[in-house]
Amino acid sequence: MNLRVVRTAREIRGAVSQARQSGQSIGLVPTMGALHQGHGALIERARAESGCVIVSIFVNPLQFDRKDDYERYARTFPADLEFCRERGVDLVFAPDVAEVYPGDQRVYVDAPSLSEHLCGKYRPGHFRGVATVVAKLFNLVQPDRAYFGEKDAQQLAIIQALVTDLNFPIVIVPVPTVREHDGLALSSRNARLNPKERRSAAAVYRALRAAENNLGAGASAAKEAAIAVLQQEPTIRVEYFEIVDPETLHPVEGIRGPVRIAAAVWAGETRLIDNIYSAGTGRPIP
Amino acid sequence: MNLRVVRTAREIRGAVSQARQSGQSIGLVPTMGALHQGHGALIERARAESGCVIVSIFVNPLQFDRKDDYERYARTFPADLEFCRERGVDLVFAPDVAEVYPGDQRVYVDAPSLSEHLCGKYRPGHFRGVATVVAKLFNLVQPDRAYFGEKDAQQLAIIQALVTDLNFPIVIVPVPTVREHDGLALSSRNARLNPKERRSAAAVYRALRAAENNLGAGASAAKEAAIAVLQQEPTIRVEYFEIVDPETLHPVEGIRGPVRIAAAVWAGETRLIDNIYSAGTGRPIP
Repeated sequence: MNLRVVRTAREIRGAVSQARQSGQSIGLVPTMGALHQGHGALIERARAESGCVIVSIFVNPLQFDRKDDYERYARTFPADLEFCRERGVDLVFAPDVAEVYPGDQRVYVDAPSLSEHLCGKYRPGHFRGVATVVAKLFNLVQPDRAYFGEKDAQQLAIIQALVTDLNFPIVIVPVPTVREHDGLALSSRNARLNPKERRSAAAVYRALRAAENNLGAGASAAKEAAIAVLQQEPTIRVEYFEIVDPETLHPVEGIRGPVRIAAAVWAGETRLIDNIYSAGTGRPIP
Repeated sequence: MNLRVVRTAREIRGAVSQARQSGQSIGLVPTMGALHQGHGALIERARAESGCVIVSIFVNPLQFDRKDDYERYARTFPADLEFCRERGVDLVFAPDVAEVYPGDQRVYVDAPSLSEHLCGKYRPGHFRGVATVVAKLFNLVQPDRAYFGEKDAQQLAIIQALVTDLNFPIVIVPVPTVREHDGLALSSRNARLNPKERRSAAAVYRALRAAENNLGAGASAAKEAAIAVLQQEPTIRVEYFEIVDPETLHPVEGIRGPVRIAAAVWAGETRLIDNIYSAGTGRPIP
C-alpha cells in the first residue's frame, strides 16, 4: 500500500486537489492518534465509501481543559501509521501545533446550548475547541464525508449541528461504538487503566443498560438503577449520569420519545465516557 | 446582460458548480441590499478579477441587536437588481430568512477579542451574527475571493481573522471606502438623514482627519481634537471615538505604529460609522 504522510496545510490541499482531479471522492477520519479498533471501524467505513481516505492525527491543545491531560494524552505515531497502512488509508495528515495554530486563535466555533450539559458542563471550553479544530480540518481537507464515532455522542451531535448550521457541504457519517467483550467502549484512555480499574470499567456499560431497562419507571428511577450498579465498584467515581433528548442534549424527566443515556466516570485517574441510544420504550435501537 | 437570481442553497450550489465546471473563478460580494456606490466599488473590483460575480443580498436578522433596526433596514430589491445588472453581475443570491436559518441556530462563529471594542462594545452579539452568516455564505458559495468594504473596518478585520483562523480557502479583498464630496462615507443608512443631519454628518470625516493630524500629541490629545470638531454639530451625538491597533482593534495610548481611527455617532435616530487608517506619523497611508 502507498500511504503518504503530509504535515502542512499546503501539502494537504495539494494532495486533496490531486485526488479530486483524478475523480476520487474524499473521506476524512479526524483523530487524535493512539488509534484502536474504534478508529478502525471509522477507517473501514471510510475505505468502503471513498476513493481517497484521509486520516488526520492531531492532538488538539484547544480542546483540553487541563494541561496535564493534554500532556499525558497517548502519542503512538509509528504504530498509528502502521495501523493506517494495514487498513488501506491513502493519506495521513499529521500537522504540528504551529501549523494548525500559527498565531493566537481569535475566531472560535461554538455550540452553546448543545454544550451546556454532559461533558460540556464538566470540561469548560472543550467543545469550543473541538468545533473550532473540526471547522479548520473541514476547510483544510474539504472532504465529501467525515466519520465520527457514536462513543463521543455529544461531540457527534455538535459536529452534525456545525455542518447543518454553518452549511458545510459535507456529510457526517456516525459509526457505532466498538466494545470489548465485557461491554467497555474502546478508548485511547483505556490503556491507562490498571487491571482492577479495567475490570470495574465494564460496569459503565452495565449501568447504561440498567438505566435503559428501567426507563419505563421514569428518568429518575432509571438513573438510580444505573448508579446502584456503579456504586458496587469502589474504584469508580461518577461524574455524571444523564438521560437526555438526543437532539438538544438537555436532560429529560418524563420519557416520551427516544433518549440518549450518557455517563462519565473516573476510574482512578482516568476519565471514561460512554452512552447508548434508546427508543425510550425499554427496547434498544440496534 | 444575463443576470440570474437564485433563492435557495440548492440553486446557488448548482449555479456555482456550473460556473466552476466552465473554468470560471468565483467572486462573492456579500451585502444586505440597499445598494449604493460603496457596493458598486466592491462589485467593480469583483467584476475585474472574477469569471463569475455573485452578489448576495440578505438582511441578516442574527446581526441586529435591535429588532426595530432590523425592521427599519432599507429593502430596495428591484433597484438592487437593476444596480447589479448595470454592473455585469452574473448571479444574485437572495435567500429568505427560512432558507438561511431553517431551524434554531445552534452553532455560532465568534471573535471575542476582536469584538471587545468599537462597535462590538455597543452592539452585543452583532459580530457573532456577522461572522456566523459570513461562514454560512462562504460554505454555500465557496468563492475564490470575497469583497468587503473598509468602511466596516471591524467587520473586515473579523472576517480576515475568520478566514485565517478557520482556514477557509478564500482570499478576502478589502475595498476602500467611497465618500461623498464632503467626505461622508456612503452607507445605506444615509438615506434616513434629514437635510440638517446630512450636513452635520460630514463632520465625522473631518473629525477623523483632525485626530490624524494630532496623532503626534498622543492618542488622548488626538481624540480631544476630533471630539471638539464633532461637538460643533448639535445634531451629532458621539457613541465612541477610538484610536486602535489595526490588528487587535484594542485602543492604544502611545502611538508607535500604524493605527485605525474609528468613530460611531448618532445623527438624530441614525447611527453612522466611519474610520481611517493612518501610519501613525500624522501622514495618511493612501
